[in-house]
Amino acid sequence: MKQLFSCVFKISRRLSGSILEDLNRRTIHLSVPCVCKSKNQKKLFGKKLQHMVQMMALTDPEIEKILQPFRQQVKEQGDLVRKLKTEKAPELDVARAVADLKQRKHALEAKELELAPKDLFDRAKLEDLLKQKFFVDQSFAIYGGINGLYDFGPMGCAVKANLLQLWRNFFVLEEQMLEVDCSMLTPEPVLKASGHLERFQDYMVKDLKTGECFRADHLIEAQLEKLATDKKISQEKKEEIKRLLATIDNLSKDDMGQAIKQYNMKSPITGNELSEPMEFNLMFATSIGPTGHIKGFLRPETAQGIFVNFKRLLEFNQGKLPFAAAQIGNAFRNEISPRAGLIRVREFTMAEIEHFCDPTNKDHPKFENVADLNLTLYTGCNQMDGKPPEVKRLGDAVKEGLICNETLGYFLGRIYLFMMRVGIDPKKLRFRQHMSNEMAHYAKDCWDCECKTSYGWIECIGCADRSCFDLLAHTKATGIKLVAERKLAEPISF
Amino acid sequence: MKQLFSCVFKISRRLSGSILEDLNRRTIHLSVPCVCKSKNQKKLFGKKLQHMVQMMALTDPEIEKILQPFRQQVKEQGDLVRKLKTEKAPELDVARAVADLKQRKHALEAKELELAPKDLFDRAKLEDLLKQKFFVDQSFAIYGGINGLYDFGPMGCAVKANLLQLWRNFFVLEEQMLEVDCSMLTPEPVLKASGHLERFQDYMVKDLKTGECFRADHLIEAQLEKLATDKKISQEKKEEIKRLLATIDNLSKDDMGQAIKQYNMKSPITGNELSEPMEFNLMFATSIGPTGHIKGFLRPETAQGIFVNFKRLLEFNQGKLPFAAAQIGNAFRNEISPRAGLIRVREFTMAEIEHFCDPTNKDHPKFENVADLNLTLYTGCNQMDGKPPEVKRLGDAVKEGLICNETLGYFLGRIYLFMMRVGIDPKKLRFRQHMSNEMAHYAKDCWDCECKTSYGWIECIGCADRSCFDLLAHTKATGIKLVAERKLAEPISF
Repeated sequence: MKQLFSCVFKISRRLSGSILEDLNRRTIHLSVPCVCKSKNQKKLFGKKLQHMVQMMALTDPEIEKILQPFRQQVKEQGDLVRKLKTEKAPELDVARAVADLKQRKHALEAKELELAPKDLFDRAKLEDLLKQKFFVDQSFAIYGGINGLYDFGPMGCAVKANLLQLWRNFFVLEEQMLEVDCSMLTPEPVLKASGHLERFQDYMVKDLKTGECFRADHLIEAQLEKLATDKKISQEKKEEIKRLLATIDNLSKDDMGQAIKQYNMKSPITGNELSEPMEFNLMFATSIGPTGHIKGFLRPETAQGIFVNFKRLLEFNQGKLPFAAAQIGNAFRNEISPRAGLIRVREFTMAEIEHFCDPTNKDHPKFENVADLNLTLYTGCNQMDGKPPEVKRLGDAVKEGLICNETLGYFLGRIYLFMMRVGIDPKKLRFRQHMSNEMAHYAKDCWDCECKTSYGWIECIGCADRSCFDLLAHTKATGIKLVAERKLAEPISF
Repeated sequence: MKQLFSCVFKISRRLSGSILEDLNRRTIHLSVPCVCKSKNQKKLFGKKLQHMVQMMALTDPEIEKILQPFRQQVKEQGDLVRKLKTEKAPELDVARAVADLKQRKHALEAKELELAPKDLFDRAKLEDLLKQKFFVDQSFAIYGGINGLYDFGPMGCAVKANLLQLWRNFFVLEEQMLEVDCSMLTPEPVLKASGHLERFQDYMVKDLKTGECFRADHLIEAQLEKLATDKKISQEKKEEIKRLLATIDNLSKDDMGQAIKQYNMKSPITGNELSEPMEFNLMFATSIGPTGHIKGFLRPETAQGIFVNFKRLLEFNQGKLPFAAAQIGNAFRNEISPRAGLIRVREFTMAEIEHFCDPTNKDHPKFENVADLNLTLYTGCNQMDGKPPEVKRLGDAVKEGLICNETLGYFLGRIYLFMMRVGIDPKKLRFRQHMSNEMAHYAKDCWDCECKTSYGWIECIGCADRSCFDLLAHTKATGIKLVAERKLAEPISF
């Protein structure tokens, strides 16, 4: 008798990144007393910002014409996937069809971005400015720096503090959520139960001479893409490469090893031989206490701290559902190759909400407050049909079943309002539904709030129906029932 | 040409602890919307609080009479230490005399606490209440819990968030400090340079059969104290034990090993044999990146993040001293045996200020604003003379040289005002100067703001003149000069 929805805001990894990109267009109130020290500096600062004004394109019929065949390609493959699923075709066939669908979606998206009027926005210049004004810079730079670790300076700190303050007011206080602040150090059994020990991993390959590591899928993808444009390679071979590329996200460890051998792939840096792909768990391991017997990890997400406190939180709420718990805190992921500035880093602040409700009643008493909002929705169906996202009234989207219930709808609405409050351009914001093959191991339904950045569309907030996956997992591991009770109108007899 | 003062506020480890103890007497504004869910509960809550009202004693001439011989004991030993130091006696003799002085100070303090009218305050009851209302509780309790790790629930979170907000307003914004937010993951070379790799350690002994670990000095102290009251032991032996107890804080690894053998000490839990004492570094180790070659630690303090950013911060301040940088964040210490509730834990939030100034001019332009405050000062001299702390006007204390300069004085004044704002009882607050033998490896002068709690007087804020120890250390390690420049009125010729 419990169900949960989770909203994860990735503050310093994602949201800060896109807010800093947006800073040049919008005024975010900084509580640091003096932004500019001298008149002269102020002028310079303003000039640079003006120079980098970002532009957004409206849909153009000419462009739509060019995109049409790409959309058609996606739609055909989407229909095939649907057909295979209805016919209950073998799992492998479905997986291959889905992978091909993904590839076609990528091609469509790449074309869209290519055809969109170029932004005047210059990322390198903005990054220089952010560094120069010490909004943010690489950590331990005087020691040569560590990839994927960043320090926020006075200006970045002020942006971050204001953002978190706003978040706490907007969600925790306005919605009367129960805030918690849990340990980052987490003992192994908790993360074993949650599935992170087994599944929170990527594959990597090593340069056999230098020991340098590469993420296997990224390396294979890059080398195949290079081969696919090589003039010396036969058309037949190219088709084969294209087929392999289409399945890149679903390759097993053995598939990857075979691809590396078959195409004789080498280290992109040194040209040396590469190792077999090996699993690499993305959690930072450590040992708690002096004996060395208590193995622990730095938490890879803040959610588990909420789940293991479910019983206490339910008691705090006098045993009644629904209630929501929230947590702001840092999480850690030992990325194999951190990249894309603040987007894929090894240590970052998250703000997370877990809303627990009765699975038999997912209505929300305040849904009416957000029902008239118009959101840009990119449903799984649209993605399969090669259609662009659509602007929909939230109330209609729930009525038509695009968004499966009021509670999920309410959170999407609140997230939209929060993003507007923070100053995100609504034209650069969309809600994309996960397709069934891309959901995390714990999710039943999932919507990402994506922002269009200079890196493309980036997930800034994930909003998932995790069902009772986590609570069940911790119940199994500890024997302590993490459930809520409800008095029935009449006794049930079996 | 740089000097720094550092103020470290240990929020969740110390300050939260004493604030939570103080909660029963004072109203701290909670921004959580509803503290009590029902009238009935409210009544209960209020009743419990009333029941635990804490009382504070005034000085009583009767008590002073009993304390007199203890004060005399301290004074005699203090004079001896002074004499030995003036005569430049061998280091070992001074160390032994200082250790004995410490022991006498402890005896005096214990007597004072013993004679003070008993608080009606009941710690066990308050701890139950804090747990029951989920202010704070042990982390991962459903998995059996991990010692030294705590989760804050909704009420504790609200207290903590308000405290940090107040701190940020009071120090960072009012004083225009430069706030930073640095990585917790820290590569080894940084902590090697700062001295933590070598010196941030305690000694431990292991139960040879079960592997259970004990902090060596705590174990020896407890067993010696037990022996000292044993009726079967000769007076001569007791004197020897007392002498050893007097030096407990200065015992070397070999001294400890010898004491354990000599007194045939066993595990207090099982009675099994114990290992030799061994060094145990208190930092949590991990490995950054996939190769396993970049060794890292979780930062044991937030200060190093500020020091390694000194150059950027100085640039941000247009190359001018003085300026102060501040950071709020978590730090981690792998305590051998965490104890005393929230006071000695393994993961905690700190709020830290590093004020950088010209070492030839430590005046402070705003000192006049705090000069009329009356602070309870417990100087090194008073401690050596067995005298109680004295209430002093801050301006006079600086004029008389008790506090060595205006900048240090200004920070002590601001800290006092902050503690009043937070709601600490001024009668339970004092500033204690470190004696020369107890300062950390980086400190030149150090004042602790101590609060009287049910665990005795506990350091809540440390305010140290770190000289340029850290900046020099990082300069040596990296070759990058961490200094500020000042234009002289006239050129200097050598």
